[in-house]
Amino acid sequence: MASNGAKLPLLSGLVDSTLQTNNAYAPNRRRFRRVKSAPLTEFVPSGAGGDGLLSRPESIGGKLHPSLILVAASMAIYLGAGTLCFYLVRDDIEGTKTNPIIDSIYFCVVTMTTVGYGDLVPNTSFVKLLASAYVFAGMAIVGFILSKAADYLVEKQEMLLIKALNKHRKMTPSKTIKEIESYRVRYKCLIASAILSVLMFIGTIVLRKKEGLDLTDALYCVFSTVTTLGYGDESFSTRGGRAFGIFWILISTLGLAQLFLYVAELFTESRQRALVNWVLTRKMTSLDLEAADIDNDGVVGAAEFVIYKLKEMGKITQEDISLIMEEFEDLDIDQSGTLSVSDLVLAQTPPTKR
Amino acid sequence: MASNGAKLPLLSGLVDSTLQTNNAYAPNRRRFRRVKSAPLTEFVPSGAGGDGLLSRPESIGGKLHPSLILVAASMAIYLGAGTLCFYLVRDDIEGTKTNPIIDSIYFCVVTMTTVGYGDLVPNTSFVKLLASAYVFAGMAIVGFILSKAADYLVEKQEMLLIKALNKHRKMTPSKTIKEIESYRVRYKCLIASAILSVLMFIGTIVLRKKEGLDLTDALYCVFSTVTTLGYGDESFSTRGGRAFGIFWILISTLGLAQLFLYVAELFTESRQRALVNWVLTRKMTSLDLEAADIDNDGVVGAAEFVIYKLKEMGKITQEDISLIMEEFEDLDIDQSGTLSVSDLVLAQTPPTKR
Repeated sequence: MASNGAKLPLLSGLVDSTLQTNNAYAPNRRRFRRVKSAPLTEFVPSGAGGDGLLSRPESIGGKLHPSLILVAASMAIYLGAGTLCFYLVRDDIEGTKTNPIIDSIYFCVVTMTTVGYGDLVPNTSFVKLLASAYVFAGMAIVGFILSKAADYLVEKQEMLLIKALNKHRKMTPSKTIKEIESYRVRYKCLIASAILSVLMFIGTIVLRKKEGLDLTDALYCVFSTVTTLGYGDESFSTRGGRAFGIFWILISTLGLAQLFLYVAELFTESRQRALVNWVLTRKMTSLDLEAADIDNDGVVGAAEFVIYKLKEMGKITQEDISLIMEEFEDLDIDQSGTLSVSDLVLAQTPPTKR
Repeated sequence: MASNGAKLPLLSGLVDSTLQTNNAYAPNRRRFRRVKSAPLTEFVPSGAGGDGLLSRPESIGGKLHPSLILVAASMAIYLGAGTLCFYLVRDDIEGTKTNPIIDSIYFCVVTMTTVGYGDLVPNTSFVKLLASAYVFAGMAIVGFILSKAADYLVEKQEMLLIKALNKHRKMTPSKTIKEIESYRVRYKCLIASAILSVLMFIGTIVLRKKEGLDLTDALYCVFSTVTTLGYGDESFSTRGGRAFGIFWILISTLGLAQLFLYVAELFTESRQRALVNWVLTRKMTSLDLEAADIDNDGVVGAAEFVIYKLKEMGKITQEDISLIMEEFEDLDIDQSGTLSVSDLVLAQTPPTKR
């Protein structure tokens, strides 16, 4: 989901860069917009400092900022309303109590993340149903956060890592970009793992110091929490521990979920890569040529070849193509089979004047 | 993830159908493979009974069958090994006990789904760490199941629903297909909701009969379980209840997770649809024409137009195109800018003979 969104800000940049390269290669009439030796760097205007890729997270930031505010606002409303509700019915919740407000927030967080230790449980029908409704809404909000905020934060970290690597290895920006594009998901996995490890380490320390657990019990409680297992035999039972737990549980459960999402992305990507390779190295037959020939002129142009291969790779479907072809035929007013400036002029003239 | 896989079996069918339509429209030299009035049905050969779409789940079945076996096998190994382990250390697990084997499987299921009631908890360091490791592996397997088996089963159900609707409404197959393509994700949401509701209903009944809970407590336990919250104040404590719980917990937690995935897909799809509409209705300028002109001949052919629009929609990237263009230039041995049968013949001749 997130990667879909990430592609959009790239578009304008890529279109510009193709235009530039286009002019540079104009002399040879029949040559295409790229030469074989430098397949990817070609499209990054060198003067712009690799703005095609390096500026991506910034532009995502610009795009996502309203979403991030939305995430924060919905979280605040959800937790605020939950805290108020469960504070009002605090006498119908039984278990280890500390400060009433901290307990209410803690109960909300433990419920929304589906950790559910069971150290605080509702004991009337009304509060039981309230908690049931609350956990459903919580799962939706957690999904929303995973699709927006967590990805955004990891990408920010990714940029810092890339900048550090770049400084260290003294590579040209375009070379780094190429390398990063192919290891993008791996970098994300790496960063998510690093963040999660730090969180788990901090959690273990706090559980040992504040809750007085021994090392095994602290580790066990950490694992039980980040996976949202929450048996509840070990949990946060002091005021300080719970105040820490509110933030720590929220962040670390999201962290592990995000890491699993990245690992899944890694698998999908490697499968996709294998398929692309297979499609590209497969031998073309005359039957393929016939199928790829969209305008029926007996030969396959570069663009027709690209569409045929993209379809084979499963990146696009016939439906995608059909929709756009419909639009093309609307625009191609002189029915020449190609669009030229004269078609555009004709299209903008009111039909009565034609 | 699953939808990526689903696209592949379609390819061969689509290529065939375009070839058929191609022949039908051959007389008009410059016309393309589809006419404006019937955008989608055109590509489904009427004689084949809409095999483009209706056979999809079957072909997925054919494709996924090895995966389903893999899912079942890994589940069996995972649960089998877990049951054996926790059976051997059953004296280090404290809580409500019934039959030792049922308890071991039940403990495995409650742990792997991260429900974690806490009615059975490890009480030695070794078993605590074992359970921690087990829940991690469990999350990975649950993710694997969600990406394969659950989707497959829902698609099977979807086909039954479609057939029933088709019979009822007496529509032509191609019309049904069109309608289903655009409501595909909604159908999936509907079916996943229906399955989950039935599961929750059965769960409530069994908790009332076997565990003797009142209606509110039974509902509360059902909600607490399907969301994997698992406070643990209400859980399966009888032998019969646990035997039922083993299957019910596994299926219902997966069911809710899958439903959330479909709802997310629904949101993504509607965003994507809005973008496609925007791209298609946007006015073309002469700058767009210049950018879309891949072979630099001053006009934009149908295929070039399709690629330009697909890029704008974010469905493909410049990188995708570059990779394929490289392959194209390799194949275009006479450097004519088009591929013809003679290029293919040349490509298959050993370089020494050229």
